[in-house]
Amino acid sequence: MAATMDHRAPVPRDAENDYTPAAAEMRREFLRERTGATLEHVSSFSFDPGLLPGNVEHFTGVAQVPLGIAGPLLVHGEEAQGEFYVPLATAEGTLVASYNRGMKLLYASGGVTTTVVDDRMQRAPCFLFASAREARAFGEWLVERFDDIKAAAESTTRLGRLQDIEQYSASRMLYTRFNYTTGDAAGQNLTGKATQAACRWIVANYPDVEQYFLESNFATDKKSSQVNMLRTRGKRVVAEAVIPDVVLQATMHANSELLFRAREVANLGGFMSGVNNNGAHSANGITAMFIATGQDVANVAESSAAFVYAEQRPNGDYYYSVTIPSLIVATYGGGTGLPTQRECLELLGCYGAGKVNKLAEIVAATVLCGELSLGSAIVAEDWVQAHDLLGRNRP
Amino acid sequence: MAATMDHRAPVPRDAENDYTPAAAEMRREFLRERTGATLEHVSSFSFDPGLLPGNVEHFTGVAQVPLGIAGPLLVHGEEAQGEFYVPLATAEGTLVASYNRGMKLLYASGGVTTTVVDDRMQRAPCFLFASAREARAFGEWLVERFDDIKAAAESTTRLGRLQDIEQYSASRMLYTRFNYTTGDAAGQNLTGKATQAACRWIVANYPDVEQYFLESNFATDKKSSQVNMLRTRGKRVVAEAVIPDVVLQATMHANSELLFRAREVANLGGFMSGVNNNGAHSANGITAMFIATGQDVANVAESSAAFVYAEQRPNGDYYYSVTIPSLIVATYGGGTGLPTQRECLELLGCYGAGKVNKLAEIVAATVLCGELSLGSAIVAEDWVQAHDLLGRNRP
Amino acid sequence: MAATMDHRAPVPRDAENDYTPAAAEMRREFLRERTGATLEHVSSFSFDPGLLPGNVEHFTGVAQVPLGIAGPLLVHGEEAQGEFYVPLATAEGTLVASYNRGMKLLYASGGVTTTVVDDRMQRAPCFLFASAREARAFGEWLVERFDDIKAAAESTTRLGRLQDIEQYSASRMLYTRFNYTTGDAAGQNLTGKATQAACRWIVANYPDVEQYFLESNFATDKKSSQVNMLRTRGKRVVAEAVIPDVVLQATMHANSELLFRAREVANLGGFMSGVNNNGAHSANGITAMFIATGQDVANVAESSAAFVYAEQRPNGDYYYSVTIPSLIVATYGGGTGLPTQRECLELLGCYGAGKVNKLAEIVAATVLCGELSLGSAIVAEDWVQAHDLLGRNRP
Amino acid sequence: MAATMDHRAPVPRDAENDYTPAAAEMRREFLRERTGATLEHVSSFSFDPGLLPGNVEHFTGVAQVPLGIAGPLLVHGEEAQGEFYVPLATAEGTLVASYNRGMKLLYASGGVTTTVVDDRMQRAPCFLFASAREARAFGEWLVERFDDIKAAAESTTRLGRLQDIEQYSASRMLYTRFNYTTGDAAGQNLTGKATQAACRWIVANYPDVEQYFLESNFATDKKSSQVNMLRTRGKRVVAEAVIPDVVLQATMHANSELLFRAREVANLGGFMSGVNNNGAHSANGITAMFIATGQDVANVAESSAAFVYAEQRPNGDYYYSVTIPSLIVATYGGGTGLPTQRECLELLGCYGAGKVNKLAEIVAATVLCGELSLGSAIVAEDWVQAHDLLGRNRP
Repeated sequence: MAATMDHRAPVPRDAENDYTPAAAEMRREFLRERTGATLEHVSSFSFDPGLLPGNVEHFTGVAQVPLGIAGPLLVHGEEAQGEFYVPLATAEGTLVASYNRGMKLLYASGGVTTTVVDDRMQRAPCFLFASAREARAFGEWLVERFDDIKAAAESTTRLGRLQDIEQYSASRMLYTRFNYTTGDAAGQNLTGKATQAACRWIVANYPDVEQYFLESNFATDKKSSQVNMLRTRGKRVVAEAVIPDVVLQATMHANSELLFRAREVANLGGFMSGVNNNGAHSANGITAMFIATGQDVANVAESSAAFVYAEQRPNGDYYYSVTIPSLIVATYGGGTGLPTQRECLELLGCYGAGKVNKLAEIVAATVLCGELSLGSAIVAEDWVQAHDLLGRNRP
Repeated sequence: MAATMDHRAPVPRDAENDYTPAAAEMRREFLRERTGATLEHVSSFSFDPGLLPGNVEHFTGVAQVPLGIAGPLLVHGEEAQGEFYVPLATAEGTLVASYNRGMKLLYASGGVTTTVVDDRMQRAPCFLFASAREARAFGEWLVERFDDIKAAAESTTRLGRLQDIEQYSASRMLYTRFNYTTGDAAGQNLTGKATQAACRWIVANYPDVEQYFLESNFATDKKSSQVNMLRTRGKRVVAEAVIPDVVLQATMHANSELLFRAREVANLGGFMSGVNNNGAHSANGITAMFIATGQDVANVAESSAAFVYAEQRPNGDYYYSVTIPSLIVATYGGGTGLPTQRECLELLGCYGAGKVNKLAEIVAATVLCGELSLGSAIVAEDWVQAHDLLGRNRP
Repeated sequence: MAATMDHRAPVPRDAENDYTPAAAEMRREFLRERTGATLEHVSSFSFDPGLLPGNVEHFTGVAQVPLGIAGPLLVHGEEAQGEFYVPLATAEGTLVASYNRGMKLLYASGGVTTTVVDDRMQRAPCFLFASAREARAFGEWLVERFDDIKAAAESTTRLGRLQDIEQYSASRMLYTRFNYTTGDAAGQNLTGKATQAACRWIVANYPDVEQYFLESNFATDKKSSQVNMLRTRGKRVVAEAVIPDVVLQATMHANSELLFRAREVANLGGFMSGVNNNGAHSANGITAMFIATGQDVANVAESSAAFVYAEQRPNGDYYYSVTIPSLIVATYGGGTGLPTQRECLELLGCYGAGKVNKLAEIVAATVLCGELSLGSAIVAEDWVQAHDLLGRNRP
Repeated sequence: MAATMDHRAPVPRDAENDYTPAAAEMRREFLRERTGATLEHVSSFSFDPGLLPGNVEHFTGVAQVPLGIAGPLLVHGEEAQGEFYVPLATAEGTLVASYNRGMKLLYASGGVTTTVVDDRMQRAPCFLFASAREARAFGEWLVERFDDIKAAAESTTRLGRLQDIEQYSASRMLYTRFNYTTGDAAGQNLTGKATQAACRWIVANYPDVEQYFLESNFATDKKSSQVNMLRTRGKRVVAEAVIPDVVLQATMHANSELLFRAREVANLGGFMSGVNNNGAHSANGITAMFIATGQDVANVAESSAAFVYAEQRPNGDYYYSVTIPSLIVATYGGGTGLPTQRECLELLGCYGAGKVNKLAEIVAATVLCGELSLGSAIVAEDWVQAHDLLGRNRP
């Protein structure tokens, strides 16, 4: 542990302009010398690094993630209507094929219906007081002065609108959730800034606040939580479909009875295991779309939560739905304007203003297709076995 | 909903060889015609698509994700020892800067100690019986015949070793977790295949099994779950450090007392909100490293779970630790061999055989740096305010 | 399995008046004949069974549960002020002694401050629709027609007031929580009846409801749930105290440093284990008070949830608080009017109208005393050991 | 807050023998003087207080809890076989009637099959070390020295047998669960004493332990937790039945289709709300039996967890099961030997040695009956409405 700050070799920067091919090459050279890595392929980017301020620091090159296309995906949303070819950036074999197979199944079944049922992005400051009684009084004051607080918050943002402030009390604290709508941006930065402004106004006007923290695990950005599954973070979006049993049998080597039995067993399994998603693997499709379209991929942590609900209908048809309670997507800001990311958004007709719900709907429809595809694959194994088992009883 | 299968235009494939620049261009052309998207930048890949079977289907191009470098990160692991420059693929501004700042803090504090404390990858079949009594008898049989089952499972794999089979009973089902070590691979495919072979042997030898499903939400691949936080999935790895209070004050505009208070409040917040991670934002660093180094990025869902535990020591020093209970990493297989991904693994000295624990340690150390950096930033806001509040009491 | 309904011998009833000593004796005789049990002591009740309609069916006698008294408990509540002697009905040795010891500690520390911070009892109907879109429209209608729905609900109740209707959407369902204040009654029956009336009004006025269920696991009566820990069920009450370190050392063979370290470790343990209460054993005191005072004891399921939050203050004092988020208590209705139960409520000055918050405060203060008592006992073991460990280093 | 220890009036005790009618009367008199309470009925106990050491301190009288009887309950267990009349101590109207109704339904359906599938009572010490690496080494040593540790633990107990030690690591701690079988006792005290002895042996033989706590929220005594739902605490017991649809229709004004739909909706509701029991109200029956039979009623906290799993069979029959993963029961020790409590155990043929699994089975069967009774009642409301809705379509 002889390391001292004197010997520390920080990543070099160009003080003039750090977003140039030369600055990137300087860093690669620095890294080559120190580690022996070649860093050839990462140097192969097709755009001007001048685009990158606000997206990355110490820019050194790019990761090239393979892009496959699944589709056509047939969607009957409020914003997304028609057929889509979905870009999936992944290195996991069979992922694209599996989603593609599910899209074919749903196409044959008449498509996926999608609905964005809620929309709220939050920052969650916690306020500390001398005791619980002062915390309760503060909670009442928050309600009374909501309009002033809203004004303070919104003074910092063009897009963000403070909808309400939820309160959760414990001990001498009041935890809050400041819920915003944020237009086509995902809104984490916007809500952070607005809530900081609101907090400053609050402590200036309510002297009893002993201390506050801008965040205390009640917005759970980039983490999965029950509160977000209950109260929504980002978009709450539902994808639904009815799959005729004959289509299941023809294309999936499965049927609705077997799929439904597997679902019941998985529901109980998920309840026991304490999972945040009683479905199969929504993170696969979501992650691949997030990388492709320039979303904040770390939001897979909370965007991967899901509620699956299915019914075997009296006629044998299979009603299937996925609810994603905390899907964080944007068609503006963050990585959405980067070159390949923008191209993938354009492929979906989702680049720019007024498109965020459309994107949310396409993500949800994609997820549903992937669930049915993997679910059928698990069951098809059993389908074979079921025949075997039946066969065993015969002479 | 006039869509019929007759009009469906599937993504075109080259029946001869679908992994060529021409096949990719054919698909881009198909997409351009149907959507108007340009798809120029996605076409700019620097490698031969012939590498890609097993990684993607319907290959059409690449997503270019900006790569920044943070470091040096000083690690005292069992496998990772010394200084590392960490590749982070992201489009989120300040992410690299924030991790870099944390690495500087920890360098000044003497580095991060890391330990892989457990290692197990699983597949979790569920077996159904006539009633609970038969399910219980089967559980006893599983214990008795473990060696045979292990032999059946391992017949399909070179690397995988079945360690044990956990049992969780409910109703007429026995849910199981087949736990494996998987060498330097993440092991999801390997364990799937091995467990399928084991299941086939089981049903051939235990006729009372009414039905089984290879997966029923007890391995929770790509989902966060309490069972994985308790019982480990992938690597369970701990990063620890002691940060002198003077270093905190000098570099972070914070001190251990304030950081610790914020931690206490966040701990309670996280307990109430039902979060899977009482820390700040481990998903940020993990995701950026996963994209850069060719991990299965969808595993951010479970890899983002974390336990933070801190102590304010009597001398004012700050003991801080992060435990990642379900970190899924590989240095072999999956996307690790793709060109930019391999270069990033080589940058860390983590490409290939025998390196997976080293990579796990570096990820955990990176996460710890990011936690302290963001934690300090949240508190520094308060730090300013704390001075203001103190100031208010003065004339 | 030769049983048939012909041979079934139901518990006998007196069709005229089933609430008499003779009817009870008839049943005891029936049971003696069939089982050989003596049932002597259960026949020793001191009151007229004519009191019991609405409390029990097939009345056959009483369980006699030993009653111990702990106190004086010093409370600084808003309703409960002064010293109380707390009746605890239990058969668990040391329980009364342990709570008594905690009350002595808190007396010496100046007492316990208590605050009821929220109050809401609910019933949670779920409404089903053709698809998510209709469910969302219904949610908007619920907001618009709140006044009508409130009128329909309150038409059935003298005490209940509908405060708001929370909405939680998933798939083609809208789950709701109808939140009421219910005066001095616990309110489960009252809210059930009121919500049933509201639902009937709703389906009469909103034809799109395909189906509804009066309850679907969102009020979680007699079950513990995150939603109730977050959103309150019954009373949300906080008990707080500051215990001088010298008092801890003098009376508990512990000190605040050791207690706090134990708390930190238990906090992490509880977070990992997925517990509904990061404290020690609040259910002990709550259950014993519930039995003594005629509460619905099955509500221990949710009333046992708790959030403990503690701080070691710079001067060594120990701030300690317990928040009970779903404490179901009544001073009116249910078992509160039964003879021994009423006497125990009167012992606390809590029988009848306008007393329910007082009772809630006394329960919370009692819980806090028990937490510190058991917490100290766990640590005192270590206290001894800590000295031993220190001693080991000496010659 | 003028209270000082000088004015404190502790509950009076008789130094000679505190378990006499006179001592109880002395305390009642003391309380009457200080509070004005009459305490007449509580003085009406039918037994010699000399029985009570080990059950209560400061004995002052009894709570008389009304006892109703439900039955006959038809059980096909491994230990419980035949018809039982179940004592339920409660003050909640309809509770006895509802369970009784369910027992009638299940009688008509051929009875309830019960199976105890697991049995383990634990104490959960946590050990602290310098860092995670030492904690891991200790975990390996625990495995190696299991026989010695077992011997140390069992030296303190006649009934308890240490089965295994589970390990859960985080930070510089190793949390453990010492799992025992405990014969007919519930076993919390027994396991506490045995584990304390084991810990003393451990720290005497493993000097690297920096500190340990006998309990740190991993056994979660008297609290509900995921770890206990997964890994069992007390008995894990399953009750199952198949109810013919015709029986449902004839006796419950419901049918299996409607019941099953309600179950599906409740399953999703419970998953979203984060409940510890996806059923209806098992705590009602469990609590009433616990009070009647002298169980530690505070264990309702964890005993109320449950997993319900149901199937609508192709012929319309309804398979229904309840799994109680952490049912804490005893037929020996604690309150089981008190007069009325013992009589109620004798009523079930469950008093004394070798009866604990029989009692567990009867509890589980009772719970199942109550679930179907309440479930049907919720649906019967809808049943009526369903007819109405159907009716609406008619002229």
